Amino acid sequence: MVLLVQKYGGTSVANLERIQKVADRVAESRRKGNRLVVVVSAMSGVTDGLLKMARELCKDPSEREMDLLLATGEQTTTALLAIALQSRGVEAVAMTGAQAGIVTDGTHTKARIANVTPRAVQSHLKAGRVVIVAGFQGQTMEGQITTLGRGGSDLTAIALAAVLKAERCEIYTDVDGVYTADPRTEPQAKKIGEISYDEMLELASTGAKVMQARSVEFAKKFGVVFEVRSSFNGLRGTMVKEEAKSMERVVVRGVSLEKSQAKVTLVGVADRPGVAAKLFTGIAKAGINVDMIVQNVSLPTGGKGSKAQTDITFTVPREELPKARKFLEPFRRAGWVKQIVFQEGVAKLSVVGIGMRSHSGVAAQLFRALAAAGVNIQMISTSEIKITVVVDEGMGAKAVRAAHREFRLGGKEGKR
Amino acid sequence: MVLLVQKYGGTSVANLERIQKVADRVAESRRKGNRLVVVVSAMSGVTDGLLKMARELCKDPSEREMDLLLATGEQTTTALLAIALQSRGVEAVAMTGAQAGIVTDGTHTKARIANVTPRAVQSHLKAGRVVIVAGFQGQTMEGQITTLGRGGSDLTAIALAAVLKAERCEIYTDVDGVYTADPRTEPQAKKIGEISYDEMLELASTGAKVMQARSVEFAKKFGVVFEVRSSFNGLRGTMVKEEAKSMERVVVRGVSLEKSQAKVTLVGVADRPGVAAKLFTGIAKAGINVDMIVQNVSLPTGGKGSKAQTDITFTVPREELPKARKFLEPFRRAGWVKQIVFQEGVAKLSVVGIGMRSHSGVAAQLFRALAAAGVNIQMISTSEIKITVVVDEGMGAKAVRAAHREFRLGGKEGKR
Repeated sequence: MVLLVQKYGGTSVANLERIQKVADRVAESRRKGNRLVVVVSAMSGVTDGLLKMARELCKDPSEREMDLLLATGEQTTTALLAIALQSRGVEAVAMTGAQAGIVTDGTHTKARIANVTPRAVQSHLKAGRVVIVAGFQGQTMEGQITTLGRGGSDLTAIALAAVLKAERCEIYTDVDGVYTADPRTEPQAKKIGEISYDEMLELASTGAKVMQARSVEFAKKFGVVFEVRSSFNGLRGTMVKEEAKSMERVVVRGVSLEKSQAKVTLVGVADRPGVAAKLFTGIAKAGINVDMIVQNVSLPTGGKGSKAQTDITFTVPREELPKARKFLEPFRRAGWVKQIVFQEGVAKLSVVGIGMRSHSGVAAQLFRALAAAGVNIQMISTSEIKITVVVDEGMGAKAVRAAHREFRLGGKEGKR
Repeated sequence: MVLLVQKYGGTSVANLERIQKVADRVAESRRKGNRLVVVVSAMSGVTDGLLKMARELCKDPSEREMDLLLATGEQTTTALLAIALQSRGVEAVAMTGAQAGIVTDGTHTKARIANVTPRAVQSHLKAGRVVIVAGFQGQTMEGQITTLGRGGSDLTAIALAAVLKAERCEIYTDVDGVYTADPRTEPQAKKIGEISYDEMLELASTGAKVMQARSVEFAKKFGVVFEVRSSFNGLRGTMVKEEAKSMERVVVRGVSLEKSQAKVTLVGVADRPGVAAKLFTGIAKAGINVDMIVQNVSLPTGGKGSKAQTDITFTVPREELPKARKFLEPFRRAGWVKQIVFQEGVAKLSVVGIGMRSHSGVAAQLFRALAAAGVNIQMISTSEIKITVVVDEGMGAKAVRAAHREFRLGGKEGKR
């Protein structure tokens, strides 16, 4: 008797018809002899509806009350799914996050799980019941209802899987799994059968869109093997787990493209210790999400009394450009920076794979492929398992296809 | 600083606009210096919507999960009302029944309050906050969420008022208060300023329609003074409290009419001990709500070997007649009863007043008034503070007006 934790997202339980389908799937898994804990989100649209009501009543509603309000969404789904299972003759019991022992800190609307005390869940499992748990929510030691913020239901599932030592966690969503590239950009894209936690984290536009980094990190920390798969078909999804030897044979796991980026170049930054630190601390405090930062070696401009200067370039999501502009302008006026160049219309292309660590020349291979495709590289940044380049947004799709082909990621199975 | 418990029913919080109005009213009461606990129901329609969903999934959903599901309705209202108050600058905190310390037994869907541990509520009150509590729900000692059944939110309010020793409890609803008669039947009907618990309980069609007997009985037991009033205007309502000396001066407090009744006469019931007991035990088990039971003195029919027989008549709500018919037929076939006569189209008229106890001749006065109005009396039943007669349904309104006039219940203020 294997213990599985399944998680169904909002679109998977969007209406009664879909809840019936989920019940069918859970009932089938139960019939096969699995012991099951099922974590559910709110029916899609419900959370937004509650938010909208609250905001009509108050521009800035208190977070404690927002949590009390939003927690009703998942609670409703648990009861409905348990009832649907009961009508199939499956013994099922619905539990709030609090009842399931999800204990959090007191940071309302984005609480962190402090610990999980799964005694009640275990005793229901022992009695042969399917346990339906409200995702996204918990309770503080003092009995306050909290919610876990974005991706919270995934986190509930991973945390329960960890503490119950489940065989694995199945994350049911509206995509089939993680692909070698976005199939809308690259028709040859293939579903990835197995991927490491780190690769999943680095695949920003494909992997991370499927699941928040937070849950993947939690799973990595506690060694929870999970599968991302669709609730709308019976296909196997993508298994996310600790890297295995065999994984390293694949040099590049996938290609990821983030569009709608902007590039900010600070020209003539005084090249002395502490300047960059001061700038980027301020940028972070202003809530601007800087991603790549590239600084070239600085060369003295020569001439008497000339000071060493450098250029620093970084990327931000396009929508944060106005904020960045507003924040940086004073530095230019104060003479810290000679000139600031803002450029929209760029995209970030990343190739990711833990195999890179033991294979040299991957970067060179990527650059060659892009050059051959006529894609100009504007910035480069590399980590142990990822190479990222900034390219013109218009060339993004072409770059993805070139990299995908170069690293032989396509395959017949990949076709949708 | 007076402590008040206010309760707002489903129609009073039916939508965001009405929640805003309730928030205005609570904020005003707070500004006057009152300390406040506010109990709310689910927004009207919400509970029915949840019930409908559950029944679509399963004909006979488990009661434990139904409670988990329905409890979300009140929880939602508490959060919304607290948020609306916060936007008015009133410090408010929303609590589930469990958080407010409403501890119940484990009878799901109709739990009984076992005790109330209001520590958390008290500490919020002490900190100057308005405490919004979800009505209709509680939690067992084991942490199971329960609901209290019909009239549950009133019960929550009365119970909290009792344990917090509130000055009084204000029950806001969609009627102005309790009237001397239904104003649709008797335009002269007057709002009653003060009424005793017992009179409220006995005024079936006026008082008890406003509030379930259960909550009135609870209030009586714990001496909770409560006021029934409208949330749609600022008028004073009806104060319900222990009888005061002054109350006894009024002989009749009100007149009440229950329409859509039916009369069942069992003719020729064997007049020996235990027969009636057996019949009515069975009727109760079959879920038939018997109200008045009248048995005439039995006279031996005379003749050799004749056994003593009697006739028993009782009333049931008309819609329960088919059930009663089905249940009783076997007794007729078995010879326990000679004949059964079913009659629809009757109504029960009651005049209620604790003053009756010390005033004789009230019954006679009522009978004279009805006779003068040409209303025929079919059955009579009396209690210490109530006289009930069964009349033809078509004569019901006429009978109400005759009794209302006879006992001088009308008045200018009664006009709507």
